[in-house]
Amino acid sequence: MIEVLRLNHRIARDKRISTHLALTSRALSVTKAYYSGQKDGSLEESVQKVVNRFGGPFEIIHTKEPLKLIKEKKKQNYIIIHLTVYGLPFTQVEKEIKDKNILIIVGGEKVEPEYYQVSDYNLSIGNQPHSELGALAVFLYKYSNIKTKFADAKIEILPSEKGKKIISL
Amino acid sequence: MIEVLRLNHRIARDKRISTHLALTSRALSVTKAYYSGQKDGSLEESVQKVVNRFGGPFEIIHTKEPLKLIKEKKKQNYIIIHLTVYGLPFTQVEKEIKDKNILIIVGGEKVEPEYYQVSDYNLSIGNQPHSELGALAVFLYKYSNIKTKFADAKIEILPSEKGKKIISL
Repeated sequence: MIEVLRLNHRIARDKRISTHLALTSRALSVTKAYYSGQKDGSLEESVQKVVNRFGGPFEIIHTKEPLKLIKEKKKQNYIIIHLTVYGLPFTQVEKEIKDKNILIIVGGEKVEPEYYQVSDYNLSIGNQPHSELGALAVFLYKYSNIKTKFADAKIEILPSEKGKKIISL
Repeated sequence: MIEVLRLNHRIARDKRISTHLALTSRALSVTKAYYSGQKDGSLEESVQKVVNRFGGPFEIIHTKEPLKLIKEKKKQNYIIIHLTVYGLPFTQVEKEIKDKNILIIVGGEKVEPEYYQVSDYNLSIGNQPHSELGALAVFLYKYSNIKTKFADAKIEILPSEKGKKIISL
């Protein structure tokens, strides 16, 4: 099981990136995404609307105390992975994380030093300036799955060569 | 060679997503990203600053006529791939695109029907609501490479277990 924690969400600046982080997580089999920073009803609503139509389970949950959340996950034997441009190559941990529960931390603009310390692994998708969302997508594609079955979906998109096919369930 | 075209950039709404699209492209070996919609000096400047510090080659180029650009690329034997939630599974084209030059189109909020028609392949990373940036990152990770050598870099990040290591070149 892989869960995601997005740090330091700021409503004005991050709404779209955080929404995309949630949708990408859901599409790649994550069922819970946490976020810290400003609580954002509009972000939660956008995500919930997708879940209502396309199915779940998927939750986006605000946390006031991200470090406490991380420590709880550690007690539950989750591996804590912080994705950062400064980290070691993400492909190095394949054996260590196989079949483990994982919490992936992705930063906002600034990430405090304690997150580097508390994480089991600080990992990078190349040591070049990047996007936390691009990095998360690559990590999840490598270590998770593209999800095809969602519960309680009201509509479904069918693969199409040209154009759009949507069916009601 | 893989190039990227981002459609319908809107300054107010898309600045961060488009900047992230450019950085993710650059980190995954793309050297040219085009964008249509509103010309955005601030987007171009953010990307140019990264190139000045971390190296290139990488260009972000505004185009007023994206369809004309696509048709020119087709004449140059590029394969045109439109990433869309409605498309066929992106893993289907592995043989067809091997060793070819590719132009990847990623949409803004709405993509006009002619882009579905003009593209050689409309491809999806799972048929679930997604992020154009998440989808691009997965596609590039599968079909391109994480780039490690950049020309004319002034600084470089060294992989680090905890913390940050940056060197001047």
